[in-house]
Amino acid sequence: MIGIVGCGIIGASWAAVHLAHGQDVLAYDAGLDIEVLEARILGILHDSGLTAQGKLRVASSLSDFATDVSYVQESIAEDLAVKQALFAQLDAICPMNVILASSSSALPASVIGAGLSGQGRIIIAHPAAPPHAMPAVEVVPSPATLPQVTDRTWALMQAVGQKPVLVQREVPGFAMNRMQAVLLFAMLDMIAEGIVTPEGADTIIRESFGQRWALMGPLEGVHLNAPGGIADYFTRYKPMFAGFCGPDQSIDDLLNPQVLAALDAYGQSTCGLDHIPDRQAWRNRNLIELKAWRKDRAWTNPPTQRNADAGTLG
Amino acid sequence: MIGIVGCGIIGASWAAVHLAHGQDVLAYDAGLDIEVLEARILGILHDSGLTAQGKLRVASSLSDFATDVSYVQESIAEDLAVKQALFAQLDAICPMNVILASSSSALPASVIGAGLSGQGRIIIAHPAAPPHAMPAVEVVPSPATLPQVTDRTWALMQAVGQKPVLVQREVPGFAMNRMQAVLLFAMLDMIAEGIVTPEGADTIIRESFGQRWALMGPLEGVHLNAPGGIADYFTRYKPMFAGFCGPDQSIDDLLNPQVLAALDAYGQSTCGLDHIPDRQAWRNRNLIELKAWRKDRAWTNPPTQRNADAGTLG
Repeated sequence: MIGIVGCGIIGASWAAVHLAHGQDVLAYDAGLDIEVLEARILGILHDSGLTAQGKLRVASSLSDFATDVSYVQESIAEDLAVKQALFAQLDAICPMNVILASSSSALPASVIGAGLSGQGRIIIAHPAAPPHAMPAVEVVPSPATLPQVTDRTWALMQAVGQKPVLVQREVPGFAMNRMQAVLLFAMLDMIAEGIVTPEGADTIIRESFGQRWALMGPLEGVHLNAPGGIADYFTRYKPMFAGFCGPDQSIDDLLNPQVLAALDAYGQSTCGLDHIPDRQAWRNRNLIELKAWRKDRAWTNPPTQRNADAGTLG
Repeated sequence: MIGIVGCGIIGASWAAVHLAHGQDVLAYDAGLDIEVLEARILGILHDSGLTAQGKLRVASSLSDFATDVSYVQESIAEDLAVKQALFAQLDAICPMNVILASSSSALPASVIGAGLSGQGRIIIAHPAAPPHAMPAVEVVPSPATLPQVTDRTWALMQAVGQKPVLVQREVPGFAMNRMQAVLLFAMLDMIAEGIVTPEGADTIIRESFGQRWALMGPLEGVHLNAPGGIADYFTRYKPMFAGFCGPDQSIDDLLNPQVLAALDAYGQSTCGLDHIPDRQAWRNRNLIELKAWRKDRAWTNPPTQRNADAGTLG
């Protein structure tokens, strides 16, 4: 049985993901009535066109997590002291073979579990938000996390239909938010410099790369943009990438032979060099279909309450 | 009539875009037979489910661009000397009110048109590739480009169904490739540091942000991630963004009151603060549909010729 602690947007979504994939779920939220919590989880299943294949039980207190639970996913507020207190309680309550995972987007497991005897079973499983709508989950062990805990967490994520990615070290922002942050920073920089407007910067991503990256990752994408694939791409554009190096970085270190070999092996695992034209045709066909798909799904910003009030007064 | 010079992947795609939107097209490629060129353009229209609303004429030489053409889109190889020679010819052939636009992704108009008497009518209109599949086009005037040339280029792009974005200055990589490059660099850096594998880095973008950015830009996206919208988001996470500042940058300069006001105005133009929950529900609903849509469109890497040969030999 999967334990869910904290049933806000993320926790309730996790519960739905597990239920839809046949896991029984024990859910707990100190601030929610049982009816509200159940309705929230069932609402997510309904909106996703899914049905519960496992059983949902609502816990009346954390002590209910002492039996029957093999994995706990914590998704409470992003407040370090509160998380630390909760993990200390869970570490005292749950048998030692129970994995204690946090949905934190930035607080590392080594800090959340500092000083606990069960540090080896504490790990980050940070989902894209909400997990029922986007499959990526970054799995970030601390230096103390036991290898079998990492393996079991990864396997569970796959079993419930998510796409786990192992992040080897607890770097700031982990991998997911770090990638978003560098892009947002580049946009901010151009906006502050008067090069593009906020709308312009968003339009470029939404109407180009966003479409392509919904079909394939950025590396798979540039693999199609040079005759020799991705290693050829990075070698050709090395001078451009050198411009992004910090004071302690060298482009020759970053693009060393091992990295180029890893990029080449990955690129060819996504598409052999002699199939690049087929893959380009596949990409274009799907981009055209995606363009048509999006047309029917436009959002129109409704008048705000303030505007509506002003209208009434006028 | 729209002149197209160079009918490779980009030029032929431009011809199809213009024809589908009722423009007559005069196409020229020094290296292609007329039949090949026509078949390529008609093939793109067919694959896109579009029909030509305008007439396609194939030019036998550049001198055919002396009459009837109001806008020329150049899409030849990305070779500065060759482009400069072509623009000098076009500048001599085409009447002064004809706009000469280049599809270059990196060579600025000021360099392509350096020393020409018609510098004022030379501009970059760099599309996402190929333009019939992705609508974003960055419009980059040089300091010499006349304002009405920029305005007419922008208006034409809108008229043929593209999404033009004005880039105010000729910065390296313009705006589109600069944004892709910072993300690729962050991925490369993490791969070289052994934090994630190439596959892991790609998976995170493809299975999370790629989905969201296909629906809305990164700034529209984070506008939903703080109660006070995008200005609130950047204020909350200011310390994180400060970590990306170069030696000559300060986060207080980047996030100055004018920038925050521009972000706030833009964010609220996409979604008023009191409609954030509706917009989140819209996002989740569409992400779930997009997930289902993608499932039917998986690409399987076929065996490479080398592997297939090895199989025969074995």
